[in-house]
Amino acid sequence: MSSPSAIRDVNITSAFWTSMQSRSRLLTIPAIIHAQKSLGHWYCLTWKEGHKTKPHAFWDSDIYKVTEAACYFLLKEHPEGKDDLILRQEVEHAVDMIRAAQHEDGYLNSYYTVRGVHKRWTNVRDMHELYCLGHLIEACVAYETLTNSGRLLEPVMKALKHVDSVFGPEDGKLHGYPGHPEIELGLLRLYELTKEPLPLKLAKYFILERGQRDANGEIFYDHEARARGGDPYDAMGSEMPNPYTHPRDYAYQQAHAPLVEQDEIKGHSVRAMYFVTAATEYVRLTGDIQVKEALDRLWRNTVDKKLYITGALGAMRQSEGFGPDYFLGDTEESHGCYAETCATFALIVWCSKLLRQELKGEYGDVMEIALYNGFLGAVGLDGKSFYYQNPLRTFTGHKKERSTWFEVACCPPNVAKLLGQLESLIYSSYEQESLVAVHLWIASEFSVPESGGTLVSQTTNLPWSGDIQLTVRGPKALKLALRIPDWAASNYSCSLSGGEVKDGYLYLAAVANTTISLNFPLQPRKVYANPKTGKDEICIMRGPLVYCIEDVDNPGVDIDHIALIADDIVADAPAATIASVEDVVRVHSPGKEIVNANWSSLYGSEEWKYGDSTKQLTFVPYFLRMNRGGNGGMRVWVKRIQC
Amino acid sequence: MSSPSAIRDVNITSAFWTSMQSRSRLLTIPAIIHAQKSLGHWYCLTWKEGHKTKPHAFWDSDIYKVTEAACYFLLKEHPEGKDDLILRQEVEHAVDMIRAAQHEDGYLNSYYTVRGVHKRWTNVRDMHELYCLGHLIEACVAYETLTNSGRLLEPVMKALKHVDSVFGPEDGKLHGYPGHPEIELGLLRLYELTKEPLPLKLAKYFILERGQRDANGEIFYDHEARARGGDPYDAMGSEMPNPYTHPRDYAYQQAHAPLVEQDEIKGHSVRAMYFVTAATEYVRLTGDIQVKEALDRLWRNTVDKKLYITGALGAMRQSEGFGPDYFLGDTEESHGCYAETCATFALIVWCSKLLRQELKGEYGDVMEIALYNGFLGAVGLDGKSFYYQNPLRTFTGHKKERSTWFEVACCPPNVAKLLGQLESLIYSSYEQESLVAVHLWIASEFSVPESGGTLVSQTTNLPWSGDIQLTVRGPKALKLALRIPDWAASNYSCSLSGGEVKDGYLYLAAVANTTISLNFPLQPRKVYANPKTGKDEICIMRGPLVYCIEDVDNPGVDIDHIALIADDIVADAPAATIASVEDVVRVHSPGKEIVNANWSSLYGSEEWKYGDSTKQLTFVPYFLRMNRGGNGGMRVWVKRIQC
Repeated sequence: MSSPSAIRDVNITSAFWTSMQSRSRLLTIPAIIHAQKSLGHWYCLTWKEGHKTKPHAFWDSDIYKVTEAACYFLLKEHPEGKDDLILRQEVEHAVDMIRAAQHEDGYLNSYYTVRGVHKRWTNVRDMHELYCLGHLIEACVAYETLTNSGRLLEPVMKALKHVDSVFGPEDGKLHGYPGHPEIELGLLRLYELTKEPLPLKLAKYFILERGQRDANGEIFYDHEARARGGDPYDAMGSEMPNPYTHPRDYAYQQAHAPLVEQDEIKGHSVRAMYFVTAATEYVRLTGDIQVKEALDRLWRNTVDKKLYITGALGAMRQSEGFGPDYFLGDTEESHGCYAETCATFALIVWCSKLLRQELKGEYGDVMEIALYNGFLGAVGLDGKSFYYQNPLRTFTGHKKERSTWFEVACCPPNVAKLLGQLESLIYSSYEQESLVAVHLWIASEFSVPESGGTLVSQTTNLPWSGDIQLTVRGPKALKLALRIPDWAASNYSCSLSGGEVKDGYLYLAAVANTTISLNFPLQPRKVYANPKTGKDEICIMRGPLVYCIEDVDNPGVDIDHIALIADDIVADAPAATIASVEDVVRVHSPGKEIVNANWSSLYGSEEWKYGDSTKQLTFVPYFLRMNRGGNGGMRVWVKRIQC
Repeated sequence: MSSPSAIRDVNITSAFWTSMQSRSRLLTIPAIIHAQKSLGHWYCLTWKEGHKTKPHAFWDSDIYKVTEAACYFLLKEHPEGKDDLILRQEVEHAVDMIRAAQHEDGYLNSYYTVRGVHKRWTNVRDMHELYCLGHLIEACVAYETLTNSGRLLEPVMKALKHVDSVFGPEDGKLHGYPGHPEIELGLLRLYELTKEPLPLKLAKYFILERGQRDANGEIFYDHEARARGGDPYDAMGSEMPNPYTHPRDYAYQQAHAPLVEQDEIKGHSVRAMYFVTAATEYVRLTGDIQVKEALDRLWRNTVDKKLYITGALGAMRQSEGFGPDYFLGDTEESHGCYAETCATFALIVWCSKLLRQELKGEYGDVMEIALYNGFLGAVGLDGKSFYYQNPLRTFTGHKKERSTWFEVACCPPNVAKLLGQLESLIYSSYEQESLVAVHLWIASEFSVPESGGTLVSQTTNLPWSGDIQLTVRGPKALKLALRIPDWAASNYSCSLSGGEVKDGYLYLAAVANTTISLNFPLQPRKVYANPKTGKDEICIMRGPLVYCIEDVDNPGVDIDHIALIADDIVADAPAATIASVEDVVRVHSPGKEIVNANWSSLYGSEEWKYGDSTKQLTFVPYFLRMNRGGNGGMRVWVKRIQC
């Protein structure tokens, strides 16, 4: 079995990524905690029944998520020790609040504590009690990995015993499952940490029970709604929450069918990703073949028909979810591009779990694309502003600025969580086979477990230039499995011959105290979309980076009405680091503007045409967008001129 | 002042339109009444408190609308007298039920009668009590025009006195207005019929009060929600109905701002059209300049930025409403094309009211486009099946069949209502000026009021061929104002010279006992969309008809992946009538298919290309779609090949 690289075992040296991580640790996490404190949400766990502030069903989870993120960063030593001390105090303060907030019977939730605990567990479809607990469990795993103190494990196990008394197949228990999956993944992570049977039992129940139908074709949420006095069939009633397009639209929660019957990814994209991620871990731990086959179908559908080129997910605003196959609108104005940060975060985590099961380059390719594009631009270069939605196109005059906080604040802490655990995505080790797999090409050192101190290290300036020096040093000889990104598969080079490529990984025989040189050529390239998407457009990529054109780099160009000639794309020479945002590698290509774009009427008999003269257009990586001013004009896909 | 031609004064002779009208009278209306009876809804007005069937907030309105439609048709004598007798009996039966259902104090609504009348008027935002009354008033106008019996006028006036006791600016009354506009138009029509001051007073209040804000920026719906115990700011609560994209999304009801402050048409498209139609009548009756200026702005925004080429309205599924400027998606799968039948119906009515105010060809042009395209195809050639949504594109393998009934059944009766009053859309007469205006080119005879029996008649085979013989016969000489459609403005001919075109109407000096020949050339033409729509596509039109390509006419052509060359469009020779659906004028043009359209992946480096060989494509009028089998592939806009 493979283990992902532990955070403590990896030292990231990439100037690109350490700057992102430092920003997250020194700016993002303090900003998140500051926002929660200034709004008062941070203290919601201390509130008693009837507290004057109206509670929110999700605020507990914000505390848990930032605590989890902080613990990841605290696993590493940093030169700025003072900041770490303050962060550790915040973590312990949160743990104190959590311990004090728990009810005698193990129940833990600020919303129902304030609103009246007798109402608890009456609406697991919408009210997020299990979702919040799931984030608590993930925080617990991170915290106990850091401290091994048991201070969070104790209330968590007590809470799980309470959950076990409420949910399950037995008569008298609720045959339910959370409206927003999340606890399933937390439970399986806790099981892996503790080997306690209870979390595995609960995760299995929640995963397999979801979407099960009774003889009338009804599911738990129908029964639960009736028990509240509601009518789930009523299109005008309160049982048709806002995101539904029709009554009983349970695809929203992936409860339209049991997982093993599903073959299309549907509904709320974050819920879907959290669910399939947990189910993937469930397969790894149990070997359930039917669930694995369902997940394989859902992966294919996601990647082949529903994935934005940036690694974003979710076209539909109403459901914050997936559209039909091939419907991938680019603008949020049309409500046809939602692309929530958390969904891309979750996709990256899903890929990492799939890679634990099976070394397939495709999982790493998608993880890399999502990381560098859909995910990375969700946080501003200031480290303190965030996107909830990540459209691929915005219009001149309609600037889309990042926000410092959201009422539903899931995205900012997820950014910090991912950057905090980036070390765990880069490598896997297979102890029995003496094999180390490299999933991501990020300059770093990996201290391979149970290898007598053997180090695997990469030196590279990716994503800017494609040379890599990969070194194995230490007492143990290691076989290597190196992901060859799909964008380099046809023209990469490796100094060590004799390797064999299988499923996107280059397998090399055991080496010791050796440096291997790899090169992944980084010519900018044109990418086209499947004609079924209707996109008669070109996207420029270079290595793992999706490029966009932004008005700030193209004065005098009508970004909203340009087409790319794209026969002649050139990239700037790479700078050494991304110490400054000006260091990114820009790409240039000639394009043309529509000459008669300004119509007063909606329809007309005059054909619109591109002019004869060409303009030199400048593209920058998509993650850099809306960081340097400009007037809002930005697009990933640019019209192609074709005959 | 102008008067639209009364239904009784016009005799439509067009084979095209009489077949549509007969179908509506002999098939559609009986089918609607049959559906209501078999579902039991027809009897909802007879139900008492606690009735076992769960009532619906709109069912009353379905009875009223079909009653209204029936009365229009009954205004004319038909050779099949038996059918008219049966229809008249249904109408009288409905009137009996309405009279019996009214409460002592004038209140009339089956939903609250069943659910408990003490709950009435607690949610005018959602519960449609005033909307239903509005349709009753319109039915009353039609019925009293037919019978002059007072049998509906009596309960209606009683109901309005009750409404007046509940709503108004006085202390102790509700300062509210209906969530779904409709009563405003009914009230103004009733005022015109009766000259009673009460309907005008109420209409004025509802029109001007909508969207008024208090010192906190809140509107009546905020106050009303709190009075029900709700929190209008709660994104999770029952005060955020399903169509809202955010709490207090009152654009849905056009209540985001008072009408006089509005400059963009927003929200639910049917509500919007009903509201502006009533406000247009309000301007005509009162001369309110501020309201007129607002309506002028809303008209410009509608026509210049939000109107489908078919005359459909409403891109967004969630709100059944308008999208942002220039967002006009073509497929309902993307939730980016709603195009509700009722919105196009209402747009036609709005145009007719605008033409009462001011003779502007633009109003007639839009009315004509909406009538022949967005509206006409909403009913199947069988007369008994209907579209609620009218997307401009459907995909092969996803057939969109018409339905026989809907839970919310607004569309079918609106189709019958419009075809029943088609006579009133064709002409206007201006008695003082001895002027008759021709708005629509539909073969018919108009007996001009107060003219001693002077007839204006048109002979034409439009929409198939463009020759028109316009005759004035009788004792009175008449000036004429003839709408020159925008599609014929540059190349029409008229046998009578000396006329002057102003605002799209050709004004001719007084003529008597004369026949004038007009010709509107009907070459098929290519229409392009404003580049801001992103549509790099071509629509073929011929005269007022929008054409589409449908798979049933194009065996072996991949409708989903074609482009039009469109340099060589030819039309078949017109047949004499549309006695058979095979008689429509087809249009042909060469096109090309994408040769490498079938990708397994979502993105790739291979450019997709059109093949070298051309295929002859056949187009039919959009209204004919999905009537003759096929596999669902249909599109109005076809990709253009351009260099």
